[in-house]
Amino acid sequence: MDISGSTRVFLILGDPVEQVRAPEVFNQQFRKHGVDAVLVPARVAPADLPAFVTQAFKARNIDGLCLTVPHKTLVMPLLDRCDALGRVTGAVNAARRNADGSIEGALFDGIGFTRSLAADGVAIAGARVLVIGAGGAGVAIAASLAQRGAARVALYDKAAGRSAAAVAALAAPCGPAIVEAGSADPAGYDIVVNATPLGLEAGDPIPVDVARVDAGAAVVDILMKNQPTPLLRACRARGVAAHAGFGMLAHQMPEYLEFFGYPEIAAALRADLSEVSALLAA
Amino acid sequence: MDISGSTRVFLILGDPVEQVRAPEVFNQQFRKHGVDAVLVPARVAPADLPAFVTQAFKARNIDGLCLTVPHKTLVMPLLDRCDALGRVTGAVNAARRNADGSIEGALFDGIGFTRSLAADGVAIAGARVLVIGAGGAGVAIAASLAQRGAARVALYDKAAGRSAAAVAALAAPCGPAIVEAGSADPAGYDIVVNATPLGLEAGDPIPVDVARVDAGAAVVDILMKNQPTPLLRACRARGVAAHAGFGMLAHQMPEYLEFFGYPEIAAALRADLSEVSALLAA
Repeated sequence: MDISGSTRVFLILGDPVEQVRAPEVFNQQFRKHGVDAVLVPARVAPADLPAFVTQAFKARNIDGLCLTVPHKTLVMPLLDRCDALGRVTGAVNAARRNADGSIEGALFDGIGFTRSLAADGVAIAGARVLVIGAGGAGVAIAASLAQRGAARVALYDKAAGRSAAAVAALAAPCGPAIVEAGSADPAGYDIVVNATPLGLEAGDPIPVDVARVDAGAAVVDILMKNQPTPLLRACRARGVAAHAGFGMLAHQMPEYLEFFGYPEIAAALRADLSEVSALLAA
Repeated sequence: MDISGSTRVFLILGDPVEQVRAPEVFNQQFRKHGVDAVLVPARVAPADLPAFVTQAFKARNIDGLCLTVPHKTLVMPLLDRCDALGRVTGAVNAARRNADGSIEGALFDGIGFTRSLAADGVAIAGARVLVIGAGGAGVAIAASLAQRGAARVALYDKAAGRSAAAVAALAAPCGPAIVEAGSADPAGYDIVVNATPLGLEAGDPIPVDVARVDAGAAVVDILMKNQPTPLLRACRARGVAAHAGFGMLAHQMPEYLEFFGYPEIAAALRADLSEVSALLAA
């Protein structure tokens, strides 16, 4: 699609923003479906975020914002409405201007993760899950797994207060399935998720003892960089099923597009994500 | 070019903005020259303009703004620097953030017009010119013609105070070549320019009496809509050389691109504008 004066505009805000993949994926889909819309990056410093977001939504053809580090949390005070998962984790992936002028946010990290697991053939219903790391991603993943029928989701963080706080916050939206884990020991779990940054830096310890992962369990590492990550390599060396976090990103795309008002693209992507996955893997 | 996280972003601000052609032209050139940059439209209401411009320039990868009606004048108080023609007319086509953080504006209407005339083979040096309409476009055109060697540029506006004020404002940057015309009578001029909106509405009078245009004179109508305009049709019916305003727009493009930091594209366009002209005529 060529950009014209009538093109609808979306922005992805980050600081830095050079690393984001969203423009490639969104614009691929807009083009494919003949939608006259475009997503462009904007590098906005944290101190400038509130005024920037307020002004961006004043433009009548800027319909939505994607948010990446560090703006997923900083945008929260600017929202008039937010989905339950966003409120619990204190972070959103996207914000849009509704027809009534209100600004609404939503977090897709959790649903992206569970859809990705399902697509990889990992059963969630009835599963015993260990999530390591109770930051924003870990909390969203734990909540989504509980909401999709996991029998028990144990949340571990080396800062014990952090996992206790997350378990308390998730009690209302997710019920009693989410509990605090006493340790990072993966024994006895069907699904083990690394939601910590361990593996980004050379010399980081591997976040779980792979030798103690159950035979038949699935290990997922949400890190995007350094593929295959040290955890995934250790799993594969032992013959443990290991999944990279890419899928989580690809499976968020239908949610973004539905949220931004393009249900037909969302439906097409839910039926076939192969193009998006190929683009993200490239 | 595909848009990525490292793409430099330019905006065109207008209200409305649907009619603008700049996104097509800029993006054609960025793509052709392998420049990782994009121009997108933003519809911003006049009341929102000051804060929007201030915030847009906070984004590190938003490098410049194009301005169209009504923002060409409204942006003036936000500029730290401005070229002489912009100051005189109180309007700019573009604003950029300089390396030192200052916001600088420039007006290209005049140079676009004179370059277009030159490309059409109309001699400016020594010419006697009548410009009808002393609004922003008329003043910029008059000044550029005087600066490029026109012997005398007579400025007429049916509101006499308006043309007198413009002639006074142009005395310093343009010298004594610019004078006030007593009437819209085109007799005795080599170049006659319509810089009024007459011809946009059905039933508008033709701004000059075509029967009194000198044989061998050139008439230019800067109106973009309703081509050929009533004035151009009347000229052609009498065998008077008549030029449409499209060229003015195309010939501004090298100036925009130089101003925004792409001198190599500007140089290529100064050598060959045919692609841009074809796009604008389509």
